[in-house]
Amino acid sequence: MNHWIDHLGVATESIERTARTFRGLFDAELVHEETMPDGLEIAFLALENATIELLQPTDSGTVRRFLDRSGAGIHHFGVGTPDIEASLTAAVTAGITPIDETPRPGAMGHEVAFLHPRDTGGVLVEFVQHSAS
Amino acid sequence: MNHWIDHLGVATESIERTARTFRGLFDAELVHEETMPDGLEIAFLALENATIELLQPTDSGTVRRFLDRSGAGIHHFGVGTPDIEASLTAAVTAGITPIDETPRPGAMGHEVAFLHPRDTGGVLVEFVQHSAS
Repeated sequence: MNHWIDHLGVATESIERTARTFRGLFDAELVHEETMPDGLEIAFLALENATIELLQPTDSGTVRRFLDRSGAGIHHFGVGTPDIEASLTAAVTAGITPIDETPRPGAMGHEVAFLHPRDTGGVLVEFVQHSAS
Repeated sequence: MNHWIDHLGVATESIERTARTFRGLFDAELVHEETMPDGLEIAFLALENATIELLQPTDSGTVRRFLDRSGAGIHHFGVGTPDIEASLTAAVTAGITPIDETPRPGAMGHEVAFLHPRDTGGVLVEFVQHSAS
């Protein structure tokens, strides 16, 4: 089953500032903005084959802790899948610990599930199944 | 001018181990291995629309320092461009400091140039122009 790079998640103290930088640098277009229920503002910038997701915390939580510990930068790796249940099952079979044992609604209503970076080479992986796919 | 996600660079202590994890997790195929002149073994795993570049240092250098400081994980963001000179010029015009002021040969003979993460939201960006494009 094929997987693809869906997006690169980047933590920032200011979506406005980082979006301006990436728009200028990559001619990337701002395609979506959303306020998540868990104290997070997000914005997506479209490159030709994938997006950059900017994450700005407005409250305590994992992205706030990430920024306090590591500073602004790459936070996670969004991997597209046509069947998130099958991808999760395969991961668990391979001995990988999911943070989300079952998929949950993420940005844009897509189904998402994170895996623990301890088991994935230090990379925080987010499986994403698009709601339209 | 359009840019795309070319690859995600991941630092690891063991290409063999991390490649096994990602191959199992994403059905990603190992498509290229190379020994770089600067004390670095690299390997590329293909997803549907982009690749993961694994970087294993065999000597001192920037990736060794990254691993010692931060541990294994996402190291850089490879951004494809059809014209790396134009992308670099636009970056400099926007006030961004390039680490490589002129493109240099990278993996697979592609022309590459890194930008300083200080100016790019904490993200280490590598522009890549494919030699065949």
